[in-house]
Amino acid sequence: MATPLTPIRCLYRAIDLFPDKIGIVSGNDSYTYSQFGERCLKLASALKKNGVGPGDRVAFLSFNNNQLMEGYYGAPLAGAVIMPLNVRLSIQELVPIVNHSGAKVLCFENDFLPMVEHIKATCRHVVRFVNLNQDYEALLDEGTPDYVDFMGVDENSMAELFYTSGSTGTPKGVMLSHRTLYLHALSIATLMGDAKDLVDLHTIPLFHANGWGRPQASTLMGTKQVMVRRFEPAGVFKLIQQHKATEMSLVPTMANALLNAPDRAQYDLSSLRKIMLGGAAASPDLVARLEAVFPCDIVSGYGMTETAPVLTTARAKGGVDESDPAVRHTRRAMAGWSVPGVEVRVVDLHGQPVPKDGQTIGEVIARGDHVMMGYFRDPDATAATIDNGWIHTGDMACWDKDSYIHIVDRKKEIIISGGENISSIEVEKAIFSHPAVFECAVVAAPDEHWGEVPAAIVVAKPGTTLTADELAAYLTGKLGKFKLPRLIEIREEPLPKTGTGKIRKLVLKEKFWSGKEKRVQG
Amino acid sequence: MATPLTPIRCLYRAIDLFPDKIGIVSGNDSYTYSQFGERCLKLASALKKNGVGPGDRVAFLSFNNNQLMEGYYGAPLAGAVIMPLNVRLSIQELVPIVNHSGAKVLCFENDFLPMVEHIKATCRHVVRFVNLNQDYEALLDEGTPDYVDFMGVDENSMAELFYTSGSTGTPKGVMLSHRTLYLHALSIATLMGDAKDLVDLHTIPLFHANGWGRPQASTLMGTKQVMVRRFEPAGVFKLIQQHKATEMSLVPTMANALLNAPDRAQYDLSSLRKIMLGGAAASPDLVARLEAVFPCDIVSGYGMTETAPVLTTARAKGGVDESDPAVRHTRRAMAGWSVPGVEVRVVDLHGQPVPKDGQTIGEVIARGDHVMMGYFRDPDATAATIDNGWIHTGDMACWDKDSYIHIVDRKKEIIISGGENISSIEVEKAIFSHPAVFECAVVAAPDEHWGEVPAAIVVAKPGTTLTADELAAYLTGKLGKFKLPRLIEIREEPLPKTGTGKIRKLVLKEKFWSGKEKRVQG
Repeated sequence: MATPLTPIRCLYRAIDLFPDKIGIVSGNDSYTYSQFGERCLKLASALKKNGVGPGDRVAFLSFNNNQLMEGYYGAPLAGAVIMPLNVRLSIQELVPIVNHSGAKVLCFENDFLPMVEHIKATCRHVVRFVNLNQDYEALLDEGTPDYVDFMGVDENSMAELFYTSGSTGTPKGVMLSHRTLYLHALSIATLMGDAKDLVDLHTIPLFHANGWGRPQASTLMGTKQVMVRRFEPAGVFKLIQQHKATEMSLVPTMANALLNAPDRAQYDLSSLRKIMLGGAAASPDLVARLEAVFPCDIVSGYGMTETAPVLTTARAKGGVDESDPAVRHTRRAMAGWSVPGVEVRVVDLHGQPVPKDGQTIGEVIARGDHVMMGYFRDPDATAATIDNGWIHTGDMACWDKDSYIHIVDRKKEIIISGGENISSIEVEKAIFSHPAVFECAVVAAPDEHWGEVPAAIVVAKPGTTLTADELAAYLTGKLGKFKLPRLIEIREEPLPKTGTGKIRKLVLKEKFWSGKEKRVQG
Repeated sequence: MATPLTPIRCLYRAIDLFPDKIGIVSGNDSYTYSQFGERCLKLASALKKNGVGPGDRVAFLSFNNNQLMEGYYGAPLAGAVIMPLNVRLSIQELVPIVNHSGAKVLCFENDFLPMVEHIKATCRHVVRFVNLNQDYEALLDEGTPDYVDFMGVDENSMAELFYTSGSTGTPKGVMLSHRTLYLHALSIATLMGDAKDLVDLHTIPLFHANGWGRPQASTLMGTKQVMVRRFEPAGVFKLIQQHKATEMSLVPTMANALLNAPDRAQYDLSSLRKIMLGGAAASPDLVARLEAVFPCDIVSGYGMTETAPVLTTARAKGGVDESDPAVRHTRRAMAGWSVPGVEVRVVDLHGQPVPKDGQTIGEVIARGDHVMMGYFRDPDATAATIDNGWIHTGDMACWDKDSYIHIVDRKKEIIISGGENISSIEVEKAIFSHPAVFECAVVAAPDEHWGEVPAAIVVAKPGTTLTADELAAYLTGKLGKFKLPRLIEIREEPLPKTGTGKIRKLVLKEKFWSGKEKRVQG
C-alpha cells in the first residue's frame, strides 16, 4: 500500500517535528507550527460544515498573510481545492475566472470589498463569502482541530487551481495535483542546503504560480516563513533585519527596486544567504549589482504556473567553473539546469533536441513530476500544451554543453525582421546596460519593408536625462544592425505591469499595431 | 498523466546533466555517467536477449564494483528485479535464499566460484551464470545501448529484492518498488546539502539494505561515486586521499577500525565533510573520537532493509542547541529524527505514542514512502510486520521533546531480569567507555533466580591487558546494580559478525542457553 503523496504531509511533518517553532509570521501575528496546523485543521473542518465537499473550489482574494497560507492547507484537508486569485486583476478579468472556476467559497481581504460586491452580484455559485478581516476567526471557530487522515487521499486529484494571467481569451485554470505539489516540495527541498536555520521571506505573492513552491517546501522543512503582505523596499528591509531572513525570491523589477532604494544602508541585511530570481529574465548586470549589495548566493530560476512552477535554476553545478565573476554573473542570470523531478529539453520544430552549442534556438519542453494535470474544464487547451507527458512551454531558448538553458524569448515575442529572429530580451539587455536606464521593453512594431522591427520603450532613472538619440548612438555597435530598435520612446511614467511585476508587452505593442494586421495575438 | 517514479530516472538524469563527469570509480576503472549509462542500457538489452523478462530476479554475488552498480540499473531497465546477495553468507544460508527467490540469472565474482558450483547443482531455476571477471563484458556486448522508455513502468512493481540476514527461519525477501527507491533517493538528496562537488565513498556493501540508498541518491545528484570493494582501513584512507572523498558511511565497527588504524596519519583525509554512522547503535564516545580525528559532520542514522533503508538521522535540527560538545556527541549518536518522506513514532503496546520524555520505552513504527511492498512470497510475514501502512520495526526506543529517537534495543534483545527491562546496548556503552575495550556484546544469559541476567563478552584492545574482575569493578556504580553483567568473558579472538559488521549475538547467546528453554528465538 503506497502512502499517498499530498502536501498535507508537509504540514503534518512540521506539526510533528517543529510543534513549538515559530512557523508563520504575518504582520504582528506569529504562529508556531502547532498553532498553524491547528488553524488549518479548524479551517478544513469549518469548510466541511459549510458544505464544502470533495473537489469544491475555495477561492482567496488576498495579499500574502497567514490566512492564505492556511487556505493552502485547509482546503486540501477538506478534500477541496485552494484557488488563490491574482489580486491585481481588474473586476472585468476576475468575474470570468470566478465563473469559470465555479468556486463555492470566496475568502477576501477587506481591501477588495468593492470587487467582492460585484462578484456577489454576478457569480451565483459562490455560496459563502468570508471577509478575512472580519469573519474569518468566527469561521475557524465553527471548526474543530481534528486530525484528518490522508491515507484515503487520491494523490492524482486536484489540490490547487491557478488561473494564469497571460491570456486574453478564455481563462485558463492550471490544475495541480496533490502528488505534484508534494513532489515539487521534495525537489525544492533538495536545493535548500542546510534548512536548519532557514528564514524564508514570502516576497512573491502566494497567488502567483503556487508561490514558487515555497508554501509546501518550506513547511516540509520546518523553516520560519515570514509573510510580505505587499512588496515595498523599506518594508522588506525591515523584515529581513527583524527576522534575520536568509532567503527571498524576487522578480527582476523587485530586485531593481531594492537596489535603487535610497534607505537600504540603514538596515542590517547580512543574514541573507540566497536570493532567487525568476518570473522574468534577469541580466548578468542585475546579478552583479545584487552580488555587490547582498553578498550571498544569487540564483535565477525558470518555470511556469503549469509546472508548479520550478523547472530549472542557475545554481552552481559540479564541473562548471564560476570563479571568474563575469562568467558567474552570466551563468547565474540564465534559466539554468533542471531541478530533480523534471527533464527539460530544448527542441526544434520536429521535437528533436537542438545542439547544446549555446546558440541554436528551440522551444523548451519539460516532463516529470512538476507538470500540471491540465487546464480546468479545457481538454483542448490541455491537449495543445501537453503531448505524451511533455509540456510545451512556448519559451524559446538555447542550451550549452553544461545543460544550462538560456531563455531568449517567448515564442510569441520573438521579433521576425526580414526573416531574422530577433530576441526582444537580447535587445532589452543591451539597453539595460546603459547606466541611465531604469526600465525598458522591446516589442515588435510593424514595418512595410521588414515586416517587423524592434521598438523600444524606455524609462530613465530618476534624476537622469536620456534622449532617444543618445540611446540609439549608445546601442550602435553593441547589437547587430538588424537588431537595433527602429523606434525608441523615452517615457516618464512606469511601464504597465501584471500583478506579478511582468511588463505587459501586449499593451505596449497595441499602439504600434492598432488598425494593422497582427502577426501574433499574444 | 503522472510520470512514473522509478530509479531509472535517477540514471537518466545523470546521463543528461553530467554526461562527461566521472560518475563511477571501481578499482582502476572509471566511467563517466554517459559511459556508465551506456553499460547499464547494454546490460538491460543483453538480459532481455537472454530471456530475462518482467519481474524476473537477477542475483549478484559480488563485493562493491561497477558491475553491481550496473546491475542496480540494468535489471530494472530490463523490467527485472536486482537482487544483491550478501557475500558473507555460508553456502548453507545462500542456497535456501536463491531457491526462495527463484532467480533466473546469477552474476558472481570469481572469488565465489566454489559456492556457485554448489548453487549450480542445487538451484535449477538459475538458467544463466555470469562470471563478472570473465563473462560479463561479453554479455554486455550482446546488448545494445538503446534508450529504454520508462513511461510504461508500473511504479508500484518490484525493482529490488533484498534478503535480510537476521533471520534463522525461512528466508525473508524485502521487496522494494520503483516508487519507493525513487522517493527514497529524493529524500536522501534533501540531506546532501551542496551536492556540487560531492565525492561519495561506497564503503557500505551495496548488497546490504539497498546500499543505504546511495546508489540512487548519488546518481540522481550526479556525484562521483567511488567503490570500496572490501573495507580495509589503509585502502579506505588511500581512496579518500586519492579522490578527495567528501562523504562516507560506516557501521560502528568500521569506524572503530579506522580510528584504531596505526597508519592513519600518513594520509590526507581533510576532504571529508560528512561521516554517516548506521547499521548498529553508535556511542557518544565514538562520535567524539571521530570528530577529533575527522573534523567534519558526524551523523548517525537509523533504518532497516524494510525501509529502503533510512528512517531517521541525527543531523542538526533547527532549534536544537548543539554547541556544547557533550550534548552534540550524545545527540549525534542517537538514531535522530525522521527524514522527509516518512513518519516515525515510538508507541506503546496499544499503538499510542509514548511520552516524548527521553525515558519511556516503546516500539519504533514508521509509515510513508520508504516502506517496502512486503516480503516476497510471504504474505503472513508481511501482515505481521505492516499494519495499515505502519511498519513495526521491532526496535525499542525512547524519544525526546525534539523528536530525536534513541534506540535502546531490539525488541528481542531486551534482557528481562527480575521483571526489569535492561537494554543490552546501555550496558555495552558502559563497557565501551573503558579505555581498554575494543569490542563487546551483552546478551541475556539464563538465571534460575532472575530468569535472565546480562552476560558480557569482551575483546580487549591489542597491547592492553584487561581482566573480568577489573572490568566488573570499573562498572560498579556506573550502572544500576541489576544491570551489572553477572558473567564477563574476556576473549582473544574477534566477535563473530554478520556480512555487514553487526555482531552475531545469537551465536554468542547460544552457549549460555544450549539445552535450556529459550525465551526468544531471535
